[in-house]
Amino acid sequence: MKRRLKLTVEYDGTGFSGFQRQTGTDLRTVQGVLERALKQLTGSEYVIVGAGRTDAGVHALGQVAHFDTESGLPAVRWPAALNGLLPPDVSVSGAEEVDDSFHARCSAKSKEYCYLILNRPQRSAIWHHHSYHVPQRLDLKSMAQGAGCFTGTHDFRAFSAAGSSARSTVRRVFASSVFAGGHWIGFRVAASGFLYKMVRLMAGTLVEVGLGRTDPVRIEELLVSRDGCEKGGPTLPPRGLFLVRITYEDEQELLCAPEFPALNVFGSSLVRVP
Amino acid sequence: MKRRLKLTVEYDGTGFSGFQRQTGTDLRTVQGVLERALKQLTGSEYVIVGAGRTDAGVHALGQVAHFDTESGLPAVRWPAALNGLLPPDVSVSGAEEVDDSFHARCSAKSKEYCYLILNRPQRSAIWHHHSYHVPQRLDLKSMAQGAGCFTGTHDFRAFSAAGSSARSTVRRVFASSVFAGGHWIGFRVAASGFLYKMVRLMAGTLVEVGLGRTDPVRIEELLVSRDGCEKGGPTLPPRGLFLVRITYEDEQELLCAPEFPALNVFGSSLVRVP
Repeated sequence: MKRRLKLTVEYDGTGFSGFQRQTGTDLRTVQGVLERALKQLTGSEYVIVGAGRTDAGVHALGQVAHFDTESGLPAVRWPAALNGLLPPDVSVSGAEEVDDSFHARCSAKSKEYCYLILNRPQRSAIWHHHSYHVPQRLDLKSMAQGAGCFTGTHDFRAFSAAGSSARSTVRRVFASSVFAGGHWIGFRVAASGFLYKMVRLMAGTLVEVGLGRTDPVRIEELLVSRDGCEKGGPTLPPRGLFLVRITYEDEQELLCAPEFPALNVFGSSLVRVP
Repeated sequence: MKRRLKLTVEYDGTGFSGFQRQTGTDLRTVQGVLERALKQLTGSEYVIVGAGRTDAGVHALGQVAHFDTESGLPAVRWPAALNGLLPPDVSVSGAEEVDDSFHARCSAKSKEYCYLILNRPQRSAIWHHHSYHVPQRLDLKSMAQGAGCFTGTHDFRAFSAAGSSARSTVRRVFASSVFAGGHWIGFRVAASGFLYKMVRLMAGTLVEVGLGRTDPVRIEELLVSRDGCEKGGPTLPPRGLFLVRITYEDEQELLCAPEFPALNVFGSSLVRVP
């Protein structure tokens, strides 16, 4: 009998050409690696559906994917079984049986991303592939003010890459905050959905604000101007971006949810900048 | 005129065959990479002296090295100049001019290491090269009790690898604590010096204690028994080990120093287990 399983997946995006399988190419993708492990485990062919198509170099702590299986293996056994077959840079952290109506992408109510910035004179050797380095001092207060402007329902066209296939550029941002501690700055944002390169363009705009090159008010202007794509930005590199979690609860619950939990980095605790 | 410079160096040990240059081999070492960058920068040959010879795969947040130079470049300019020439997995975070009597290894009063453990059912894709994964639940209280036993002046022969060249196996441990938060456990230890593989053997013993296979009291027994090498352990892999800092202040000051600062990991704050 067919059952639908929901997987929670962590991956280091450094060695991947993004999440989505690219048929007819040799490109290494997270989807491709997961589907191969599923075939090794069960002997059957699978097509998995991911909640978000992260770009090459983007990491995930809580990507979600679903697939249908005839295997009788209990859901709780899948993570360890798959992790024994998966390469070190992909790990399945959870699996649960879900209703047939569940769809990793379409049922998602909110996605949360974090963009991690190292703000100190010299770059990091250990965090090179997992953060973006800004040597000049960033003004946290104005960055936090700028991040707050993203909250609400807006037309994010100025924060989308040209050539995006999205029909509407209106998205609802539930929360948008700057966290800081030690030399680290994290920009966390949760929204109903994101346009292509949207978080990296938002983070790039906040860095311009932090450097004093852009006024936080400019973000409000960009959100109402509907000028054109990529008026915000620049687009920061993928290596600082983490897909933190996908939420399937009702929007109402999301709005009642407490603030982001504290964000911490090895050596320094990150707390929300008011 | 010759001047002595002290560098503080961060590196990701994953791609290195340890710190120390291995003459007559093609092995990639941190010392070799640093000396090559110094030659590129100044045109002269250098031999640098590191404070500690970390093994292949061991990371450093605050390794220290010294060298003598005739270059007139002010100390404050060296980090950025070197980081422009160094590969992404090595970064010089600081440079200062020091007295001729300063010696990175011999002048060191204390070294601090951290061994990072991920304690959750499934492994981490992002932290694979920077932590050790223990899927079984670890008992933090008994690990903290065990870690406390290391404090003081003891014969650490049982926590040293066979074939070590050290004349004496007596070392003084200034502080030894277990930190925890979320799924993360950090074992931090500061001592006058460490024997070969000592921290990895200590951490391995603490994991055995945490699993309930060894009683914390066994650590006290091992410290007085002077039985032989590697009676403690097992030796945990190098990837969880970080050389955190080298201290050159007087011992007296060290003993008066406050407790370790909080240790934090992306997503969870680590605090000391009492």
